[in-house]
Amino acid sequence: MAILRLDEIGSVRSPVKESIETGWAEVVSDLVLEPRFAGGLRGIEKFSHVLVVFLMHQALFDPGTDLVNRPDNRDDMPEIGIFAQRARHRPNPIGTSAVKIEAVKGNVVTVRGLDAIDGTPLLDIKPYMPEFDRIESPVVPEWARTLMRGYF
Amino acid sequence: MAILRLDEIGSVRSPVKESIETGWAEVVSDLVLEPRFAGGLRGIEKFSHVLVVFLMHQALFDPGTDLVNRPDNRDDMPEIGIFAQRARHRPNPIGTSAVKIEAVKGNVVTVRGLDAIDGTPLLDIKPYMPEFDRIESPVVPEWARTLMRGYF
Repeated sequence: MAILRLDEIGSVRSPVKESIETGWAEVVSDLVLEPRFAGGLRGIEKFSHVLVVFLMHQALFDPGTDLVNRPDNRDDMPEIGIFAQRARHRPNPIGTSAVKIEAVKGNVVTVRGLDAIDGTPLLDIKPYMPEFDRIESPVVPEWARTLMRGYF
Repeated sequence: MAILRLDEIGSVRSPVKESIETGWAEVVSDLVLEPRFAGGLRGIEKFSHVLVVFLMHQALFDPGTDLVNRPDNRDDMPEIGIFAQRARHRPNPIGTSAVKIEAVKGNVVTVRGLDAIDGTPLLDIKPYMPEFDRIESPVVPEWARTLMRGYF
């Protein structure tokens, strides 16, 4: 167990106060940076999307139940390791989501489709760049496609 | 400044020992998990790609020079904020890259195209899922396309 000093660069302001299982696509939320980091947004408005890196602060990882399990506890799902699924109860509860920029103003980036609840600590914002982030034709098993129906 | 307890889940074994500026695409490296996490890989072989979340352990963020700068210190680049570029000297030096799985064996995932040097601490491995990770037609400014030429 390493102890890393991480700086909370800001937090998420969202109308969603508790975790939901479906319907994130149309959620509009604000990435509110601490004022000292506002300068770091310069030029971000020229990108259409950002990759948001956040801390899923309500997650707790229990190796006994979370290392391998059936996603969403569903009987129709196979037993899958935590590194082969996107569940939030993971050894390091770091979330990443690619979302659309709606507006940038001062220290606030408004985005659409972020699956993070109100108050979520922000760790990083990266411009979405196809060279790093975009896979042309990713292969995904059938169970994962089934699981994701309706999430966004 | 929050202090977060993060667990190093393993590390990168790569032929690249020091950071390079170009040519990452064909680098083949191993994600070596600590044995206690090996079970967490179950089912990952059914995905073609993973999103690797790692700590850029040699990065240091200096607000004076890193919050806004010209990417790669190039005169032909505009002044850009750190959250609008992918430079490693960022407030939280967390890297993310989407890479292709070449093989999975025990506690080791062999991948192609990971831009992380030998010994890089691993924070998370996530299956690449288009719903979270894939943007159909991202818009990127001209300077960013110029900068990325040859990186992968």
